[in-house]
Amino acid sequence: MRLIRFGEPGKEKPGIVHNNVWLDVSAFIDDYNEAFFEADGLKQLEALMLNHHSLPQVDQSIRLGSPVARPSKIICVGLNYVDHCRETNAPIPEEPVIFFKSTTALCGPNDHLIIPLNSEKTDWEVELAFVMSKKASYVSEVDAMNYVAGYCLHNDYSERAFQLERGGQWAKGKGCDSFAPLGPWLVTKDDIEDVNNLSMWLTVNGKTFQQSSTSNLVFKIPFLVHYISQFMTLLPGDIISTGTPPGVGLGIKPDPIYIKPGDQIELGIEGLGTSKQIAVPYHS
Amino acid sequence: MRLIRFGEPGKEKPGIVHNNVWLDVSAFIDDYNEAFFEADGLKQLEALMLNHHSLPQVDQSIRLGSPVARPSKIICVGLNYVDHCRETNAPIPEEPVIFFKSTTALCGPNDHLIIPLNSEKTDWEVELAFVMSKKASYVSEVDAMNYVAGYCLHNDYSERAFQLERGGQWAKGKGCDSFAPLGPWLVTKDDIEDVNNLSMWLTVNGKTFQQSSTSNLVFKIPFLVHYISQFMTLLPGDIISTGTPPGVGLGIKPDPIYIKPGDQIELGIEGLGTSKQIAVPYHS
Repeated sequence: MRLIRFGEPGKEKPGIVHNNVWLDVSAFIDDYNEAFFEADGLKQLEALMLNHHSLPQVDQSIRLGSPVARPSKIICVGLNYVDHCRETNAPIPEEPVIFFKSTTALCGPNDHLIIPLNSEKTDWEVELAFVMSKKASYVSEVDAMNYVAGYCLHNDYSERAFQLERGGQWAKGKGCDSFAPLGPWLVTKDDIEDVNNLSMWLTVNGKTFQQSSTSNLVFKIPFLVHYISQFMTLLPGDIISTGTPPGVGLGIKPDPIYIKPGDQIELGIEGLGTSKQIAVPYHS
Repeated sequence: MRLIRFGEPGKEKPGIVHNNVWLDVSAFIDDYNEAFFEADGLKQLEALMLNHHSLPQVDQSIRLGSPVARPSKIICVGLNYVDHCRETNAPIPEEPVIFFKSTTALCGPNDHLIIPLNSEKTDWEVELAFVMSKKASYVSEVDAMNYVAGYCLHNDYSERAFQLERGGQWAKGKGCDSFAPLGPWLVTKDDIEDVNNLSMWLTVNGKTFQQSSTSNLVFKIPFLVHYISQFMTLLPGDIISTGTPPGVGLGIKPDPIYIKPGDQIELGIEGLGTSKQIAVPYHS
């Protein structure tokens, strides 16, 4: 199944994509949030789909929001692509690098990217994200996929000066508003044959900057669920983003390239759809 | 006012402390959460208190939870005490170091500290935390206190090996379950005469390890609100913890001291009450 949330920011309703038609399930389901996943809402959705002819259709000109509601956390993994390690001559990390993105950064897949005030180094990162279906603490790698609801396309926008030049941790450069466009859809895991073999790409103004495959992931989803759950409890609906392949603006030689107002960033992952953000300056 | 939440974990009800009596306000208020602060719930509480004789009393043997419900984020500030910088011969930072604590770490002030599996370096950090009352983005330092609801005692437990020896960012060592005991109370800002002049202390098994004053804070609350709001939007109910003074286990010479099962950690800040955690090993 492909889950969507549609409508104005903060007022999104849950829906589902069936044969390229968008269907409104808000009469039956409150939202795709922690309570939904915790109550095994995906099973309820499957039951609804047996009667999909009775569900109201949604006009596809409507805005899409993030396919999951604001979760308790967005966790990202750093330096997790073999080809990215090679490109930067960095050793493949022995353990995943993890960090948090402020959940207030979450937005719809085609919302504007707001360049923060005083930003000169806003950068892109196409990533495969996954969503937790159950509370997870000290989960084994073998059992891990039972805790995963499905997958989403994510652009882990990053302000490199805020992230790397303002002292200490990365938190300042990862969580600006609009820095986590997610979607278009949450694709349930049964709909993806091999999550470790999906091509992925990102263009800026039509020029390709990132082009790779999830086959290059160093730490794959089962290990990430196991690993992260040793350090904190993951909740239903939590989002984990698995890292970016080479080709970010920061890494371009001889001079890094960063996003300017008006730039159009498009990205996609095989089977997970595409998204597009237009960069705009911050306005109060 | 002093706000409490009482009852079983996950089922806490809101209350208020009046002349050392605990009063139940759950007939009028759902919870001390984002919606409460956003709707100017503190004003509603003030109105309720005009009729406090009609509120049911609460038996003080009941468990206290965190005085605020799980927020969108817990942000912590690192290396923010002048005396701690002196002690470690570290320069006073030019800008605040900030990082996230997983919100699943939040717990009641006197709940057990659960030592994580495979932990050998669980450490303490007495801290002054404050709670946001309004959505804050690009707030000026002058205006900042209008966005603050009040203050709490916080123990920013940290697993030093997870934080510092497992690669990359601090996220792994800060967000384990039970690593953020908050309270006993949220004290509204009007009830604290000078938040920059409160003594604070922490003991382990009766021996004093931390003893300082909020007068030693490098970056004070108005600047922190201003500063952090340049990088992300703060939401009503968000918790910000301002850093710890010297005397953590990691800093003890010649050998660091870490928490063992059975240890009793007690802490307090003038005007904000005291808390006590007993360390226990993790059990599945």
